[in-house]
Amino acid sequence: MKSFRHVLTLNIPERMGFRNITPEVERALRASGIQEGLCLVNSMHITSSVFINDDEGGLHRDYARWLEQLAPFNASADPAKGGYLHNRSGEDNGDAHHKRQIMGREVVVAVTGGRLDFGTWEQIFYGEFDGRRDKRILIKIIGE
Amino acid sequence: MKSFRHVLTLNIPERMGFRNITPEVERALRASGIQEGLCLVNSMHITSSVFINDDEGGLHRDYARWLEQLAPFNASADPAKGGYLHNRSGEDNGDAHHKRQIMGREVVVAVTGGRLDFGTWEQIFYGEFDGRRDKRILIKIIGE
Amino acid sequence: MKSFRHVLTLNIPERMGFRNITPEVERALRASGIQEGLCLVNSMHITSSVFINDDEGGLHRDYARWLEQLAPFNASADPAKGGYLHNRSGEDNGDAHHKRQIMGREVVVAVTGGRLDFGTWEQIFYGEFDGRRDKRILIKIIGE
Repeated sequence: MKSFRHVLTLNIPERMGFRNITPEVERALRASGIQEGLCLVNSMHITSSVFINDDEGGLHRDYARWLEQLAPFNASADPAKGGYLHNRSGEDNGDAHHKRQIMGREVVVAVTGGRLDFGTWEQIFYGEFDGRRDKRILIKIIGE
Repeated sequence: MKSFRHVLTLNIPERMGFRNITPEVERALRASGIQEGLCLVNSMHITSSVFINDDEGGLHRDYARWLEQLAPFNASADPAKGGYLHNRSGEDNGDAHHKRQIMGREVVVAVTGGRLDFGTWEQIFYGEFDGRRDKRILIKIIGE
Repeated sequence: MKSFRHVLTLNIPERMGFRNITPEVERALRASGIQEGLCLVNSMHITSSVFINDDEGGLHRDYARWLEQLAPFNASADPAKGGYLHNRSGEDNGDAHHKRQIMGREVVVAVTGGRLDFGTWEQIFYGEFDGRRDKRILIKIIGE
């Protein structure tokens, strides 16, 4: 069994944003030389997500609006004012920990014939909910 | 290390519906001959899900009603009218891309002694949110 | 390829609660002797979750409040009264099957150099939504 590890570093200039990281994952897969196996891609942070969906800008704006409805940004630490107890710790990112749970931490992708075994429209995205600083994404591939 | 790949094709006759695919996954596992490892099952589409929960029809109707509340179907492309920007692309399935994020893309199941290593009530479902055409589900098993 | 399996049993004394299980997963990883691979951790139940986020009590209270808004507990089986059809089966845990879908069933963690390959704040939690009885969590590690 072979294994391969690579870390991507990204800095999203906005609080919330989405970036297609499929090319970077494909590059890591080629570097691994693995033909058959599984590829894990996960955020190493707890206020961001890795997920698979469509590379369509309108959809990403829909996601941003929807996540803001489900878990609105609010810097307050008082739930009675729509804030988050988490913000008592001096953070203002309580909302980001919630948005990340909706969109997920990780994806596991099959590797077949040396390629990501994807349907027609599947693309891998990094979803940032507390950006404007460096964040890391882990790629781990095992197989043969 | 062994690996095994199989693709299921399903056509759900409604826009939204759930189908128990555990028997098909078990059949693939037997065909693989793998005794110890991991089994990935994922939708190859971005408007449907693979998830694990209970095989109980009332629950599935609850899920459908709940997902419709969280991300209502609306063919409009105007968010001010409850629509989705994604629908500017000529689609009417913006809602389905949201429902899929709630229910997830994939499951990873342990394989132990040649069987899916499940708790008592765990069953694998395909969840469709934009049906009425053929969709594919990928099963990839690695192990020994 | 090596594989290793371990089952944790937990009993959360409340209906809803969160428990950090990272130490137990690390112990299993050491016992496995696996240096490079993947570690799957999943709930064996369908009314609870395994997820990765921050070990911060305020955040967990935020999660509990948020999940209660998204899928409120209601013992009724009548959707018109806010209940769940699932509760016709004699259960009162329809809400728990919904909360679990938001928080997820499982995590897959990279194993590198014999350790869980985590970012600074990543910790593994068991999230219970229908507690007060024994529940099982599966740890399955494959690699070399």
